[in-house]
Amino acid sequence: MDATTPPLPLRSPEPVSFEPPRGMRDFYPEEMTWRDRVFEAFRQAAALHGFAPYDACVVERLELLQRKSGEEVASQIYAFEDKSGRKLALRPEMTPTLARMIAARQGQLHFPLKWSAIAQCFRYERMTRGRKREHYQWNLDIVGEAGVGAEAEILAAAAQALRTMGLPDEAYRIHVNNRALLSELLLKLDIEARHHPAVFLALDKRGKLPDDEIAALLAAEQVPSGGIARAFELLAVQGLDQAAELAGAGSTAVARLRELFELAESYGIADRLVFDIGVIRGLAYYTDIVFEAFDARREFRAIFGGGRYDNLLTSIGGAPTPAVGLGFGDVVVVEVLKAWLGADAGTVRDGVAVGYMFGAQREAAVRLAARLRREGRKVDLALAPQKPKAFFSRAGGGTCSQAVFIGPDDVAAGRAHLKDLSTREAVAITL
Amino acid sequence: MDATTPPLPLRSPEPVSFEPPRGMRDFYPEEMTWRDRVFEAFRQAAALHGFAPYDACVVERLELLQRKSGEEVASQIYAFEDKSGRKLALRPEMTPTLARMIAARQGQLHFPLKWSAIAQCFRYERMTRGRKREHYQWNLDIVGEAGVGAEAEILAAAAQALRTMGLPDEAYRIHVNNRALLSELLLKLDIEARHHPAVFLALDKRGKLPDDEIAALLAAEQVPSGGIARAFELLAVQGLDQAAELAGAGSTAVARLRELFELAESYGIADRLVFDIGVIRGLAYYTDIVFEAFDARREFRAIFGGGRYDNLLTSIGGAPTPAVGLGFGDVVVVEVLKAWLGADAGTVRDGVAVGYMFGAQREAAVRLAARLRREGRKVDLALAPQKPKAFFSRAGGGTCSQAVFIGPDDVAAGRAHLKDLSTREAVAITL
Repeated sequence: MDATTPPLPLRSPEPVSFEPPRGMRDFYPEEMTWRDRVFEAFRQAAALHGFAPYDACVVERLELLQRKSGEEVASQIYAFEDKSGRKLALRPEMTPTLARMIAARQGQLHFPLKWSAIAQCFRYERMTRGRKREHYQWNLDIVGEAGVGAEAEILAAAAQALRTMGLPDEAYRIHVNNRALLSELLLKLDIEARHHPAVFLALDKRGKLPDDEIAALLAAEQVPSGGIARAFELLAVQGLDQAAELAGAGSTAVARLRELFELAESYGIADRLVFDIGVIRGLAYYTDIVFEAFDARREFRAIFGGGRYDNLLTSIGGAPTPAVGLGFGDVVVVEVLKAWLGADAGTVRDGVAVGYMFGAQREAAVRLAARLRREGRKVDLALAPQKPKAFFSRAGGGTCSQAVFIGPDDVAAGRAHLKDLSTREAVAITL
Repeated sequence: MDATTPPLPLRSPEPVSFEPPRGMRDFYPEEMTWRDRVFEAFRQAAALHGFAPYDACVVERLELLQRKSGEEVASQIYAFEDKSGRKLALRPEMTPTLARMIAARQGQLHFPLKWSAIAQCFRYERMTRGRKREHYQWNLDIVGEAGVGAEAEILAAAAQALRTMGLPDEAYRIHVNNRALLSELLLKLDIEARHHPAVFLALDKRGKLPDDEIAALLAAEQVPSGGIARAFELLAVQGLDQAAELAGAGSTAVARLRELFELAESYGIADRLVFDIGVIRGLAYYTDIVFEAFDARREFRAIFGGGRYDNLLTSIGGAPTPAVGLGFGDVVVVEVLKAWLGADAGTVRDGVAVGYMFGAQREAAVRLAARLRREGRKVDLALAPQKPKAFFSRAGGGTCSQAVFIGPDDVAAGRAHLKDLSTREAVAITL
């Protein structure tokens, strides 16, 4: 340190806490490498599938979020007021914002539109099972297309992202259902349409809550008690053929599912798609096909989920518009990747460390580093002279696969040695 | 839409506002393309220069932010309480969080460390001159290196990012100063060291506030009135040689500046560096070299800025550690890029549109799209049959440079035509 630097007026020297706020994550470089890998796969898959990037601020109007979100979500919103008393909130999901942005320009946008965002989202939840209060969620949405081509396109993009991350195809399955099919079946069980939204949300809790608590939830929604047991029985349906038989001929919901499975063949993702009547999703706004992806061993929570929500824009005051969306969080997929690929698989060693022994070699080291960087190499340049031992010790512990250490003899000879840090082989390079 | 879909229980149909919260930005795809270009350049330059990525939540402990930030910043913090009464805030800058993360692992980390983050930051400001209340800021920090090699490395990375974005080298200048030099000169003017922090913050406001208001600020800090006029005169110093003459022989601050300019030659960035005694920076914590980059025509605010802040970790209770940091926002640089490259330069047309005339050609279209995507092409696949005119109209208006439209004859012949949308030339491709 420079002795002439004036001392800053230091505040009280008691240390503050070095922890992040409760439920929030710090990303040190070793974790960030995983996140970058996942985000890069999101961006790449979105681009390959023709989704345009969009984004909006993590701070949203509270009114919009309350209007659009399911009841449970609304109670978990981080809300606050700004200094002018505006009611704001940290968004719990991206879809209300998407709806707002589309509604704002509904006359100018060209439909169907395909949009992609990686959005940080917040929920104030009790901290159970390692759940955090924030996560990043990749959102893919197709707005303005009623056909299941939209669902297929979104699932293909999600499958591509997982492949780019390095996850084998056999490591996960995409479970597909149709809420409209459930509705058809509930009607046949004499459960009226007005009870269906409550039944969906209750059935979605199966396995997370005891059955009697779910039954109590349904009773509170005035669902007739006989209907509750019959609704539970629906979840025992095995396979699309059995469901089709129950639904009877002319079921639009079954036809849409069959068309989706057929399209999946053309996309080359049919091996990963399974019909699963138990997939319902927790949000109120889904209207038709819904889906959730799980690791094949079922060790983790859902990797991604989504579905069709055709009433989205009308619910905030826009024109009726069919839509399909996907939410793909950054937490579970990293757990799955670590389990399948190993926790160290995130680190890529492709850099070059460049160091020098004395100040007289600094210029040569800097010029070499600048040259290697112009050639596209990642260079970790020493910022001060070092002894060879210290230099190679640091170089070997980081993200470098090669190293060049420049001493006085190297500058005199006009060349140095580029050493492979794993094989210890060296090749001469000019300075 | 599917007639069997059960109606969702819609809330009240009055529309909510479709505007983003005041001071916050929506990024529609045309703006997002610019942001992606800038962020990608940040990530690439950081990687080439050996900076490791890190991140933390945009929500930070209020206590940390109040401890670390300058007074003005502290009054502009978006603060709120969570449901357990914890005092939280949206961070106004990333540096306090960086300091916290480093202090938390000071024993385990290997210094010097070079870290990079792209962080959204919030300030509740009056909305003047088009300033927003949030922006993204690229942060580069080198922690644990006292030599000016750290400053040079950071400036080289920032210059690389601008080059990757497409900005010509002659379009900007990096203005460099040293607060320690100002301190040496202020001492020679008999302004005591305890007044220097206040003098720095006041001089930084020159040109933004009238001189008499600045003088009043200094008087309020008990700076002797004679000193105020002399401090103003310092800003008239032209060039490093004149400053060196005033500082006299043995000035460490001048020696560090000279070393930095010399290093910049080796890095190949000396053509863009200028000494500028008027660059001071608004934050209290800088201790030594400071810098700010401006477009060469001086039409815009600073593109990036930063400097040395060697007392950072001690101020929150960590061990003394030298450090240099850069903050590079996403707003001004996009304004500069648009001015130099044209507002349309953000759009890249490199996709392939794939469409089909009837349902019978859908499978061929989907299989072709999947094949092109496997080859790394960005494909905008039509989700439903279309007439050729509608297809080509949409294809020509987006991000595609080529298009394939598949009709019944194409499937029968087992080939289709890949058309260049600008030249109208077509080549046959197998289906």
